Amino acid sequence: MATVPGKDTVLCISLAGRPGTFGVRFHNHLYQQLGLDYYYKAMTTQDLPAAVAGIRALGIRGCGVSMPYKEACMALVDEIDPSAAAIESINTIVNTDGHLKAYNTDYLAVRQLLAQHRIDPSTAFALRGSGGMAKAVASALREAGFTQGIIVARNEQAGRQLADSCGYRWQAQLGDLCPPMLVNVTPIGMAGGVEAEQLAFAPEAIAAAQQVFDVVAMPAQTPLIVEAQRLGKPVITGLEVIALQALEQFVLYTGVRPTAEQVARAVAFARG
Amino acid sequence: MATVPGKDTVLCISLAGRPGTFGVRFHNHLYQQLGLDYYYKAMTTQDLPAAVAGIRALGIRGCGVSMPYKEACMALVDEIDPSAAAIESINTIVNTDGHLKAYNTDYLAVRQLLAQHRIDPSTAFALRGSGGMAKAVASALREAGFTQGIIVARNEQAGRQLADSCGYRWQAQLGDLCPPMLVNVTPIGMAGGVEAEQLAFAPEAIAAAQQVFDVVAMPAQTPLIVEAQRLGKPVITGLEVIALQALEQFVLYTGVRPTAEQVARAVAFARG
Repeated sequence: MATVPGKDTVLCISLAGRPGTFGVRFHNHLYQQLGLDYYYKAMTTQDLPAAVAGIRALGIRGCGVSMPYKEACMALVDEIDPSAAAIESINTIVNTDGHLKAYNTDYLAVRQLLAQHRIDPSTAFALRGSGGMAKAVASALREAGFTQGIIVARNEQAGRQLADSCGYRWQAQLGDLCPPMLVNVTPIGMAGGVEAEQLAFAPEAIAAAQQVFDVVAMPAQTPLIVEAQRLGKPVITGLEVIALQALEQFVLYTGVRPTAEQVARAVAFARG
Repeated sequence: MATVPGKDTVLCISLAGRPGTFGVRFHNHLYQQLGLDYYYKAMTTQDLPAAVAGIRALGIRGCGVSMPYKEACMALVDEIDPSAAAIESINTIVNTDGHLKAYNTDYLAVRQLLAQHRIDPSTAFALRGSGGMAKAVASALREAGFTQGIIVARNEQAGRQLADSCGYRWQAQLGDLCPPMLVNVTPIGMAGGVEAEQLAFAPEAIAAAQQVFDVVAMPAQTPLIVEAQRLGKPVITGLEVIALQALEQFVLYTGVRPTAEQVARAVAFARG
């Protein structure tokens, strides 16, 4: 946006209960760097059906969908990509001439990260959480061939349902178990939350783990990640998830795939 | 937009059957000059009710409304300003926390221009046209105290209705009449139109006139304006109308009134 935008600028937006800054900075930075006549705006809404109908009617090209709209959006779009269908949760809408297709780039990002980090699918894991993002991560683990998993969730109904849908076990607490991979998909460790200072897993479990994965992105250095790194454990951070899922949204919206270097700069900028 | 926009940027849009460039350049230029965290995007739609509901649901601050949506929008907003109520035609929607109020800044602009140019309300005039913009101009003339007017329109029903509503006469043709003020509110002389090269009034009528007013803005130098200026007649151009109505929209959206110099620069930029 170094110059004044014209009438042909393509608009992409996000819908979130509490709009953040990462997406708007990541996308707009890359639009500028790549010379794309696009503009990204973070939004919220009190009326999701009208908002999604408005995306269609106003020709808004794409929409990132965050909490608490990820499930409710399913019924409002025209087509569901396989990345979103199985987990019944979407985070991306692509509008092509009024046809709205929904994706889940969180799922796609986790699939890619499991492969990039070369994690053996025979690795047993415990995953804390049972919300929409937990569904995306558990489904990605299952599709990547991970068969031994425990879903740890205080909410028994949601936890059991998620575990059953993926062929994993449910437990309310991890107890004394020390699985080789720990995956946090709760807000524990998230800045501004009531549990911001807490570890998502017990110190003994972290000490015994071979791999730690935290989806909390703000900050990327959660207490769990800090402790795991202090102990020399390999980690996957929420920053990797948010950056990769934003990149996949970017590609869906623009049809352009930036280089790894361009993405790295956009991530650094978006965090700053 | 010299820097990457953040999440708090306020979005304003326009809806037109064929989006132009003037508004998007005028508004975005002034946002930059005044350091306002606003962004303006020109749009079109195939589904006006969903588009207006989307404006409300997505928290879009303002919307300029052009042909062919000016009348149909009336039923979709929550409140109609007096500037729009009498002429049953709107060109501006302001969204304040989900409450949509509609205005007609074309009407407001013409009222101001008649005053600025100090045209005596006792001046008799002929106005060609009977569409939404003709209603705005005729209503502004009536409210400014002009009592002697002829509405010249080939469409008898629309022409009579407009004339009756303002207390003017209707004629299908101007004939040999030579009223002291000529007002064109048809597309005659508009670039790209089938009548782009034509005069909206006969050369004899222009020669006899004391004042010529053309609402066609693209180009501002219509054949009618060129001929009137050649004969030394005072003119009001469509550029004055479009600039002033855009300025009033800007003030409604932002609460900020730019200086005359800033407006002049924005107009020059928007035309360039």
